[in-house]
Amino acid sequence: MTPRFAQRMAEVRPSAIGELLALGADPSIISFGGGYPDATLFPAEELEACFREVIRAPGGQAMQYAPSNGLPRLRQQIAGLMQADGVACTAEDVLVLQGSQQGLDFAARMLVDPGEVIVTEDPTFLGALIAFQPSQPRFAVVPVDAEGMQTDLLAEVLAANPQARMLYTVPDFQNPTGVTLSLARRHELIRLANAHDLVVIEDTPYRQIRFAGESLPTLKSLDSEGRVIHLGSFSKVLVPGLRLGWAVAAPALLARMGLLKVAADTQTSTLNMAVASLYLDRYDLAAHVAGLRRAYAAKKEVMLDAIRRHFPQEIGATDPEGGLFTWLRFPEGFDATAFMREVALPRARVAYVPGATFFPLTPRPNHARLNFSAQPEAKIREGIKALGEALKSHPR
Amino acid sequence: MTPRFAQRMAEVRPSAIGELLALGADPSIISFGGGYPDATLFPAEELEACFREVIRAPGGQAMQYAPSNGLPRLRQQIAGLMQADGVACTAEDVLVLQGSQQGLDFAARMLVDPGEVIVTEDPTFLGALIAFQPSQPRFAVVPVDAEGMQTDLLAEVLAANPQARMLYTVPDFQNPTGVTLSLARRHELIRLANAHDLVVIEDTPYRQIRFAGESLPTLKSLDSEGRVIHLGSFSKVLVPGLRLGWAVAAPALLARMGLLKVAADTQTSTLNMAVASLYLDRYDLAAHVAGLRRAYAAKKEVMLDAIRRHFPQEIGATDPEGGLFTWLRFPEGFDATAFMREVALPRARVAYVPGATFFPLTPRPNHARLNFSAQPEAKIREGIKALGEALKSHPR
Repeated sequence: MTPRFAQRMAEVRPSAIGELLALGADPSIISFGGGYPDATLFPAEELEACFREVIRAPGGQAMQYAPSNGLPRLRQQIAGLMQADGVACTAEDVLVLQGSQQGLDFAARMLVDPGEVIVTEDPTFLGALIAFQPSQPRFAVVPVDAEGMQTDLLAEVLAANPQARMLYTVPDFQNPTGVTLSLARRHELIRLANAHDLVVIEDTPYRQIRFAGESLPTLKSLDSEGRVIHLGSFSKVLVPGLRLGWAVAAPALLARMGLLKVAADTQTSTLNMAVASLYLDRYDLAAHVAGLRRAYAAKKEVMLDAIRRHFPQEIGATDPEGGLFTWLRFPEGFDATAFMREVALPRARVAYVPGATFFPLTPRPNHARLNFSAQPEAKIREGIKALGEALKSHPR
Repeated sequence: MTPRFAQRMAEVRPSAIGELLALGADPSIISFGGGYPDATLFPAEELEACFREVIRAPGGQAMQYAPSNGLPRLRQQIAGLMQADGVACTAEDVLVLQGSQQGLDFAARMLVDPGEVIVTEDPTFLGALIAFQPSQPRFAVVPVDAEGMQTDLLAEVLAANPQARMLYTVPDFQNPTGVTLSLARRHELIRLANAHDLVVIEDTPYRQIRFAGESLPTLKSLDSEGRVIHLGSFSKVLVPGLRLGWAVAAPALLARMGLLKVAADTQTSTLNMAVASLYLDRYDLAAHVAGLRRAYAAKKEVMLDAIRRHFPQEIGATDPEGGLFTWLRFPEGFDATAFMREVALPRARVAYVPGATFFPLTPRPNHARLNFSAQPEAKIREGIKALGEALKSHPR
């Protein structure tokens, strides 16, 4: 048979750079591509102890079905983490998710009719665009500078798109650029959301990984009208392999997301929820995260130092205060996708993510995202040096 | 704010019996409500050993991100299980899912435009109706008898609904009725699907839990045109808390489901996939399942024996050859929902799932689903006796 697919699949397509990124999985390539945390820093012993304890607990409840909105104790602990970060909420305001990615899917399905507008940063997280596509949105985009989404331009975009339903932002150490939304712009973003009746999706996977400067208030903590859906994740602060994230939102929004959770996959893994909950009870997550911060700060320094040393002067790189990424700006006319295919992979044996893919509407080919968390420091030096030499010997 | 939701949320509503079922969670109630496997039969020691081994493996890969379509070794092992069950397939034909529930969501999203028809058994699995609702289908239903979906009536339903897109069935030990689709009807169902260009969703969570009779070929094994999406699950044969299921389907279908997987939650938990894979390498799943079969067969006998002994004669109960459920038929005019609220819960201290909720179009209130896998045998006897006495002393 030749299947006939639903209309909503029209824009659901394989990533144009999937094949290129797959080449980066070759172990002889130094990959700065994925957003992987450093596996040598995973709290393996502690997690092993937690799995042992929850599996041995009488009654086998950690292996059984669980409530679809999450284990009550874990919801309570997540509410505690959010309170400590300045968000007034209780366990009732928390929905446990299969990674915060699931919250992106649910938000778009819940809020966006086909053809309606989602506003995003430009560039923005590719995974969010992928999550939103099956809801058949149109995108409107707001450029990013060193202080994050440019809220003066957001005002213009909203004026031009009065029917916009939802705004998506990564305010802390944005993916892919690494920049952080300034405090003044956070207030302005909330003011604009209130004025235009937008729901704001605040995606914060990197928030805890801050190297420098003061933590800024979450958008959720500035939200007086219950229009911010805050998404959090254990992937970067604990381990990605648990696939645990969460949403904090006003009751009417969270209830609908909870219904979609029942529909989509019934529940997140009981074992993984029980283990995360026990870890939070038994161990000091903040101390563990402090170690991650130090390690990733050092790696970021190594990468930026190597970039300054080896890259041609005209290539810019952001210096993020946290997170996992720096964002390269090559001269106009440079095609980072072609360079990766023709030079970086085959000659320098280095992979990155070409920047074009992060722009929802108009790809700008003279950018690339580099991850500094996954590789050991020696590999960062080696890979950036090789990339720099390739850039110098193959000017485009 | 008062959120405005997308059109697709119109039919996404809390279950009408959610509150009633929540009452069944009271530990002083004997619940035959949920579809829970028996937690005392979970292979806890083996799973603990598997978690230990995958967490300790050098490189920490079990805690890291993994390919979104599943760990290659696990896909290969699942293909092996399917081959042993008569389905010609390879690892490439397998997509790992967050429980087979996720396959229901993906199938409907991929295939069904708003207002298009999904054909289901009548009654059918409530979770499937919940999974399908956000895709805004209409339902057409086919009654079930002792040999499963009545394919002569299916032919009529398809003639009346030429635009039907998808057919959903639980051919083995159906939820909620416990009945199994006969071999002749399996062939007829495939013939009709071919004639009407339907995609068939074959949901098989209970297939391995057979007490009596011979295993019948899966619909997928009879599918010569690549139009069956087979869904399988480790929830009943291993543990639900891993949330692991899979789809086997033709390349064009599986590729689209894989794109929805990336969009929906990126991937299933690496840890849980690695543990299931190691369990399949280290232990004898078939021997474990043989033990489950014996235990659940004994419980089914205890329940049906107690029903024969204590229930009024006019109440019918299916005698399934496998699975987790028997299906009660009360006399016309009996309202199993009202009886549960007014008598079974407060007086007999027993819970079940009122049958009305399983009928997609026209609820028939004189039915109920009883689960026999979760409770110990003594509780089954006690609960059925109490329910029988309540039915006799409160005729309706």
